[in-house]
Amino acid sequence: MALIVQKYGGTSVGDPARIKNVANRVAKYRAQGDQIVVVVSAMSGVTDNLIRLAKEIMPLPSEREMDMLLSTGEQTTIALTAMALHALNIPAASLTGAQAGIVTDGVHTKAKIQNITPQKVHALLDAGNVVIVAGFQGETSEGQITTLGRGGSDLTAIALAAALKADLCQIYTDVDGVYTTDPRLVPTARKLAEISYDEMLELASSGAKVMQSRSVEFAKKFGVVFEVRSSLNENPGTIVKEETKNMEDVVIRGVALDKNQAKVTLVAVPDRPGVAARIFKALAEATINVDMIVQNVSHGSGTPSTDLSFTVDKPELLKARQVIDGLKSEIGFREAIADEKIGKLSIVGVGMKSHSGVAAKMFETLAKEGVNIDMISTSEIKISVVIDLAKGEAATRAVHAAFLG
Amino acid sequence: MALIVQKYGGTSVGDPARIKNVANRVAKYRAQGDQIVVVVSAMSGVTDNLIRLAKEIMPLPSEREMDMLLSTGEQTTIALTAMALHALNIPAASLTGAQAGIVTDGVHTKAKIQNITPQKVHALLDAGNVVIVAGFQGETSEGQITTLGRGGSDLTAIALAAALKADLCQIYTDVDGVYTTDPRLVPTARKLAEISYDEMLELASSGAKVMQSRSVEFAKKFGVVFEVRSSLNENPGTIVKEETKNMEDVVIRGVALDKNQAKVTLVAVPDRPGVAARIFKALAEATINVDMIVQNVSHGSGTPSTDLSFTVDKPELLKARQVIDGLKSEIGFREAIADEKIGKLSIVGVGMKSHSGVAAKMFETLAKEGVNIDMISTSEIKISVVIDLAKGEAATRAVHAAFLG
Repeated sequence: MALIVQKYGGTSVGDPARIKNVANRVAKYRAQGDQIVVVVSAMSGVTDNLIRLAKEIMPLPSEREMDMLLSTGEQTTIALTAMALHALNIPAASLTGAQAGIVTDGVHTKAKIQNITPQKVHALLDAGNVVIVAGFQGETSEGQITTLGRGGSDLTAIALAAALKADLCQIYTDVDGVYTTDPRLVPTARKLAEISYDEMLELASSGAKVMQSRSVEFAKKFGVVFEVRSSLNENPGTIVKEETKNMEDVVIRGVALDKNQAKVTLVAVPDRPGVAARIFKALAEATINVDMIVQNVSHGSGTPSTDLSFTVDKPELLKARQVIDGLKSEIGFREAIADEKIGKLSIVGVGMKSHSGVAAKMFETLAKEGVNIDMISTSEIKISVVIDLAKGEAATRAVHAAFLG
Repeated sequence: MALIVQKYGGTSVGDPARIKNVANRVAKYRAQGDQIVVVVSAMSGVTDNLIRLAKEIMPLPSEREMDMLLSTGEQTTIALTAMALHALNIPAASLTGAQAGIVTDGVHTKAKIQNITPQKVHALLDAGNVVIVAGFQGETSEGQITTLGRGGSDLTAIALAAALKADLCQIYTDVDGVYTTDPRLVPTARKLAEISYDEMLELASSGAKVMQSRSVEFAKKFGVVFEVRSSLNENPGTIVKEETKNMEDVVIRGVALDKNQAKVTLVAVPDRPGVAARIFKALAEATINVDMIVQNVSHGSGTPSTDLSFTVDKPELLKARQVIDGLKSEIGFREAIADEKIGKLSIVGVGMKSHSGVAAKMFETLAKEGVNIDMISTSEIKISVVIDLAKGEAATRAVHAAFLG
């Protein structure tokens, strides 16, 4: 008898008919004799509707009260899911995050799980129930309701799987698993049977939108093996786990194109110590997330100066420009140039560590496609390049063909 | 500095604009330096919508899960109400029933409050907050979410007022207070400045729909004085409190017409011991609530027999008929006659105890109107008669005019 944690997102529980589908799937696993904990999100649309109501009351509602408000979304789903199991004559009981023993810090709307005391979950499982737990929410040790922020339901599932020492953790979503690249861009994209935590993290930060990084980081930290799979079919998904020896046989696991980045270049920045620190501290203080940073070598005669480029998420470009413009007189660069028409193309794979020539092959492939490389950034298992947005999709297809066929 | 508990029903918090109105009203009281606890219901329509969702999943959902589901309605309102106060720069914090320390028994969907441990409410009040508590809900000592059934939010307010030793408890509703009779039927109906718990209870059981009896009973038991008033205007409402000497100067406090009753008459019931017990035990076992019971004297020659009449709520008439028909061969009455076209007219007043001739005056008034009396039932402070439904409204006007002008 295995203990399985299954997580279903908002689309999978979007209406009563879909909730019944979830119950049918749970029933199949249970018929095999397994104990099952189900983690559910709010029905799709419900959270947005609650946010709309709050904004009608005031533009910037208190985060404590937003948590009180939004946590009702998942609470609604757990009750309906338990009922759907009852309709199949399966004993089931729902638990809020607080009731399931999910204790968090007090940072409302983006709380961190501190520990889980799953006695109630165990007791209900032992009594023969499927246990339905509200995702995305917890309670402080003082009894305040909190929510975990974006991707919070995945985090609930993975943390519960760790606390319960589950045999299997399944993240049901509206895609079949993790692909070598976006199948909408590249028809030859293949679903991966397995991927390492680190590869998954690099793909997540490269624009692949399967899961939030924090859930994967949590799984890596606690060694929770999980499977990403679809709630719409019976296909096996992708297993995410610690890197194994044979994973290195594959040089490149996946290719990702991020169209959501913008580039800022500061031209002729005085080349003196502390300048870069000043710039990126100011951006951090404005809570702007900087992704790639590239500084070119000094050039020209006279005062030594350099060009400095960095990328930010497109929606934050305006804010970044304001921060940079505010520093102009202090730092004395010549001008700041923003470019929204860029794409970040990344290749990810633990095999890079033991295979040489990967970067060269990527650059050569791009050159053959007539794609100019604007910025380059590498990590141990990732190579990212910034290129012209208009050539992004063709470049993705070419690089995928070169490494993954 | 007074401590005031205010309760607002579903219509008063029906949309964001109305929730803002509630906040404005609370702000006015707070500006006078009072501490305020606000109890709110679910926004009107929300509970029905949740019930509809549940019924789409299964026709008879588990009561535990219904409580999990329905308690989200009030939780949504408390968060929005706290935000509306924040928008007026008033410190406010919301609490679920469980967080407010409302401990109930485990009878889901109609739990009884067992005790209240209001430490959190006190702490938040002492820190300068308006405290918003979710009505209608509580938690068992094992941490299960429960709801209190119909009229539950009134009960929450009155129980909290008792536990907090509040100076004032205000029940805001969509009527101005308690009237001498239904103003839609009788234009000369007047709002009462005060009424005793017992009169309020007799009026509630006579078809006046201001409040559920259990809330009034709870208030009587714990001596909570409360005011019923409108959330739509500034008019003073009706104070409900223990009977005082001067209340007896008024013979009749109010007149109520209940059009929701039906009558069943068993003709020629054998007049032997135990027959009535058998009948009403069977009805009770079928959870049919019987209101008036009248047994006429035996008549006729031969075997002694009697006619037995009782009234039930109209929606339960069919079920009552089935129970009665099932007893026919065992008991041996001649026939059962059902009559849905009846009205129950009641006059209520503690003054009856010290004034004679009240019943005679009522019957005389009805006779003058040509209204035939079908059944009569009296208590210490109430006289009820069953009459032809078609004459109900005219009879109400005549009796109101005779006693209350």
